[in-house]
Amino acid sequence: MKKIGILGSTGSIGTQTLDIVRENQELKVTALAVDSNIELLERQVREFLPNLVCVYREEKAIQFRDRIKDLPVKVVTGMEGLIACATESEADTQVTAMVGMIGIQPTIEAIHAGKNIALANKETLVTAGHIIMPLVKEKGVTLLPVDSEHSAIFQSLNGEDKKKAHKILLTASGGPFRGMKLSELHDKQPKDALKHPNWAMGQKITIDSATMVNKGLEVMEAAWLFDMSLDAIQVVVHPQSIIHSMVEYVDGSIIAQLGVPDMKLPIQYALFYPTRKPLLQGERVDFFKLRQLTFEAPDLDTFFGLRLAYEAGHLGGSMPTVYNAANEWAVAEFLKGHIEFLMIPTLIEKAMQQHKLINNPSLKEILNTEQETYDFVRGFTESVL
Amino acid sequence: MKKIGILGSTGSIGTQTLDIVRENQELKVTALAVDSNIELLERQVREFLPNLVCVYREEKAIQFRDRIKDLPVKVVTGMEGLIACATESEADTQVTAMVGMIGIQPTIEAIHAGKNIALANKETLVTAGHIIMPLVKEKGVTLLPVDSEHSAIFQSLNGEDKKKAHKILLTASGGPFRGMKLSELHDKQPKDALKHPNWAMGQKITIDSATMVNKGLEVMEAAWLFDMSLDAIQVVVHPQSIIHSMVEYVDGSIIAQLGVPDMKLPIQYALFYPTRKPLLQGERVDFFKLRQLTFEAPDLDTFFGLRLAYEAGHLGGSMPTVYNAANEWAVAEFLKGHIEFLMIPTLIEKAMQQHKLINNPSLKEILNTEQETYDFVRGFTESVL
Repeated sequence: MKKIGILGSTGSIGTQTLDIVRENQELKVTALAVDSNIELLERQVREFLPNLVCVYREEKAIQFRDRIKDLPVKVVTGMEGLIACATESEADTQVTAMVGMIGIQPTIEAIHAGKNIALANKETLVTAGHIIMPLVKEKGVTLLPVDSEHSAIFQSLNGEDKKKAHKILLTASGGPFRGMKLSELHDKQPKDALKHPNWAMGQKITIDSATMVNKGLEVMEAAWLFDMSLDAIQVVVHPQSIIHSMVEYVDGSIIAQLGVPDMKLPIQYALFYPTRKPLLQGERVDFFKLRQLTFEAPDLDTFFGLRLAYEAGHLGGSMPTVYNAANEWAVAEFLKGHIEFLMIPTLIEKAMQQHKLINNPSLKEILNTEQETYDFVRGFTESVL
Repeated sequence: MKKIGILGSTGSIGTQTLDIVRENQELKVTALAVDSNIELLERQVREFLPNLVCVYREEKAIQFRDRIKDLPVKVVTGMEGLIACATESEADTQVTAMVGMIGIQPTIEAIHAGKNIALANKETLVTAGHIIMPLVKEKGVTLLPVDSEHSAIFQSLNGEDKKKAHKILLTASGGPFRGMKLSELHDKQPKDALKHPNWAMGQKITIDSATMVNKGLEVMEAAWLFDMSLDAIQVVVHPQSIIHSMVEYVDGSIIAQLGVPDMKLPIQYALFYPTRKPLLQGERVDFFKLRQLTFEAPDLDTFFGLRLAYEAGHLGGSMPTVYNAANEWAVAEFLKGHIEFLMIPTLIEKAMQQHKLINNPSLKEILNTEQETYDFVRGFTESVL
C-alpha cells in the first residue's frame, strides 16, 4: 500500500491524481489540501477518507468543518495547516499540485519530513531549486516530475548515463496563438487564451501556455531537475503534443517519450515509478490516424516571455522569482480582464529590469522578492493604465 | 582495449565498423573475413594488421596469400576458415556482418567460443533463433543488435522492465516504391530498386527494402531478440527514417530512438554498450530543418512479401528458412536481370506453399531446407520462364 498526500486536490492535477487512486487499490490518500473549493473537497473527503485535510482560507475552513462534522477527519488551515498536510505522518509521497509559489514552503517541509515528492508545482524549483535540490540529496528522498515534459525527459534518461546527455529537446505545443505575430496578440481576451489546442489544464497554466511563459518556467525547472545548463535545453515547438520531450546523447542518438496528451500517464508514472502499470481508460497513440508530427522553432520575438526566461535563468539567484511572481500577478489580472495579453510578458520584463539581483537567496529573501515584485507590477500597472 | 573480429569486413557494415575502429584507439581488430573482395581486404589488412584473415573462396584465398606474403598474417579459407575467424582466440566480440545464411554456423561457433556478438546478419536469428537464443543464454554471452531498428528497440527498452513492453513499433522507410501499386511494380529494374531514399546499404538489403522483405525479416528477428510475439510487432511506415523504432509500454507510454540515418551510430553503440561515446563526424538531427515526420500503414497487398513474413513467422520451424532462402535466391537472380521484381515475393510464396514444415529444425535440417528451397525456386523459375 502506497500512501499519498495531495496538495492541491481540487485542481486539474489533483483531481486526475484522485482518478488514478480510484483505479488502484494499492494507493491510499492520507492528506488533502485545497485553497477554497470546499464543495468538491467534501465529495473527495467522503470518497477517500483522508486523515487530515487543509483548507487554506480560514473562513472556508470553518464552513468546511461544519459540513463534515459526521466524519473523523481533522481540518486545518493557513500555511501552518498546509505544512501539517505536507508532513502528515502516514504519507510516504506528497503530490505537490498547488498553483504558484505557495507550494515552496510545504514542499521544503515535506522533504525535511522524509517524504518523496511527485512534483507538479513548477514554481518550487524555478524559484528555490538551489535550496530544494541539495535538500533532496541530503534527505535521500525521491523527487519525481509530474509535468508531462519533465516526465518525458526523466523517462528518456532512464537506464542511461546522465553524464552522456548532450541536450534536452523540450517540446512545446506553441499554445493557441502559435504562428501569430505581436500585432495580432495585443487584443487577445482570456476566452481566446484559454482555448488550448491539446491539453485540458487549469486556467493559470493555460494562459502560461498562450504566452509560452509556461515553457520558460519548464526550461528553468528542467535545468534544476536534470542538472543541465540552460543552453543545453532547446525548446522545440511541436503542435501535436505527442512527443512530450527528448534527450539527445553525445553519440547523436535521441531518446524520446511519446503518448497521447493525458496527464494521467505522467502522474501514474511518478506514483508507481519504477513500475509501469497499465493505464486504465487511457487512450493510445495511433500513428496511422496521426499521420504526421511537425516541428518548428519558437518565435522568441513574439513570445518574448520565453526569451526572458532564459535571461532570468542565466542571471539566477532571485531573478527567476521575479520572473515567476510578475507572471503570476499579471496572469491573474489578465484573467480578471484588467490588463491586456501582452502586458503579461511586458510586466515580467519591467519587473526584471528594476530588480536588484540577490545571489543564492534564502527562502525568506525569495518570499520577500515575490512580495516586492507583486508590489512593483501593481504600481507599474496603475501608473500606465 | 576491446578486440573484435569482423565477419564480412568488405561489405557496408564491415567497412563502417572499420571506420569506427579507425576513430577509436580502444578498439583493435584481430580477425577479418570476406567472401572474395581481396583488393579491399588487402588495404584493410595492411591498415589494421589482424592476426587472422579468412577469404571464403579458395581460389581468391590463394591469390590473397601471395599479395600479403610480406605480412605476418595467417590466411584461411572456406567454412572452416570462417569458423576459425569467428572463434579467433584474442577477439572478445564478433561483428557478424556477412550477407545471408552463411552467417549461421560461424555465429553459433563464436557463441560456443564465448564471444559476444554484434549481430548484423538477420538470417541468423530468422532461421535459427530457436538454436541461437538458448545458446546465448547458456554461454552467458551478450548478443547486441547492429541493425538500426533493432538497436532502436534495444535502446528504447534500456532501463525498462521488458515484461511491461506491450508492443514494438518497427519503423520502415517504405523503400523506393512506397505508395506504388502492384501494376506499377512488375517492370521495375535493379537500378530502380537500388535507389533507396534514405540509407546507403549493400545491394541485397536495398532490394529487400524495395520489396519490404527486409522489414519481414526484421519482424521475425525482433520477435527472437526481444522475446515478443509477432502480433505485438507492428510495422509503421515512416518515410524519413528518423525514428528508428519504438516500444509502447502497458501504460501507453512510448519510448522511441531517433537519429540521422547513419549505420555508424548503431554499430558504435553495439561495440561500446553500455557506454555511449561521442560519434565523431556524425551528423545530428535538426528538427527545424526536418519540419515533419510522417507515418502510414504498410500496404500488405502490394508489398505482400511483408505479409508472408508474418505467415512464415507464425508457422515457425523451418518456414522462415524457406522464406529467407527463396528470397536470397530470387534477389540474386533479379540483380542479374534474370527475373522480374514481383517474382521475388512470388517465389517466396510458392516456396512456402510447397514446403513440408519441420518443427524445431536442427542446424542440419535448416541447411537442408535452404538447399531444397534453392532447388525448388530454381526449378520453378525455369518452368515458368
